[in-house]
Amino acid sequence: MEIERKFLCGKLPFSLAEFPHKQLSQCYISTNPVIRIRKNDTQFFLTIKGTGELCRQEFELELTQEQYNHLNKKCETSVISKKRYYIPLNTTATAELDIYENQLEGLITIEVEFITMEEAQLFIPPVWFGKEVTFDNRYKNSSLSQFGIPPELS
Amino acid sequence: MEIERKFLCGKLPFSLAEFPHKQLSQCYISTNPVIRIRKNDTQFFLTIKGTGELCRQEFELELTQEQYNHLNKKCETSVISKKRYYIPLNTTATAELDIYENQLEGLITIEVEFITMEEAQLFIPPVWFGKEVTFDNRYKNSSLSQFGIPPELS
Repeated sequence: MEIERKFLCGKLPFSLAEFPHKQLSQCYISTNPVIRIRKNDTQFFLTIKGTGELCRQEFELELTQEQYNHLNKKCETSVISKKRYYIPLNTTATAELDIYENQLEGLITIEVEFITMEEAQLFIPPVWFGKEVTFDNRYKNSSLSQFGIPPELS
Repeated sequence: MEIERKFLCGKLPFSLAEFPHKQLSQCYISTNPVIRIRKNDTQFFLTIKGTGELCRQEFELELTQEQYNHLNKKCETSVISKKRYYIPLNTTATAELDIYENQLEGLITIEVEFITMEEAQLFIPPVWFGKEVTFDNRYKNSSLSQFGIPPELS
């Protein structure tokens, strides 16, 4: 079970250069239900997600590059590319800050994953977090891969 | 995690008619890794399986008929149809006896699922179980859907 809140990004009070990052690219064999393949630096993953916003079932399987290449042919969406920075917060949580590229350039989102629903509900976002979009399906990556940046931001 | 042993079927000392059964049909979006869709009477499921024989990761998600129909177009194998009978054993386990149909007619397999590896290893098959095929990949449904019944049986 994945418990996660998602935010747009406000003004960063620090440089991202000091935090580790990975280069991600992903696309969707299916967006409903979500069947996603992702390249994460040099690793490859298949991920299935159930329905839900704050809380949803998720299962991940590591793939070989060969398996990834085969599944890549079955994708029905454009590829999302983004740099993901890992920023530790003042709690046990880590902010995953995604800087989107190519057709989604300009979009920056932040996700924070929690162990329990209570922890998620009690979380107070730092001042550099922007508007919360946890419950806005347009900001799901499966939607972004199909429909691009929501009009309010583009 | 799914822990399961699989057998061919010997001579049944009882009639199957007294046991409940379901009509299954399934095919594969991918056989490596396994991404399977299955119709189980009137329910629909998406299942992902990791590698392994006796023990493998497995994740299942219920689908709507509409989701199933969409994913059906992405399948790369022929459809497997079978009747699955549920036969309680003298332990906490249930034998799932599959009678294959159409291109796999003549094949009958039995699967028993266990909670722990120890339970799986201590299991003594009833006399009406045939040869064990847990470690014979040719009897995986993903293989049967691609290559049909192994030559030794056909």
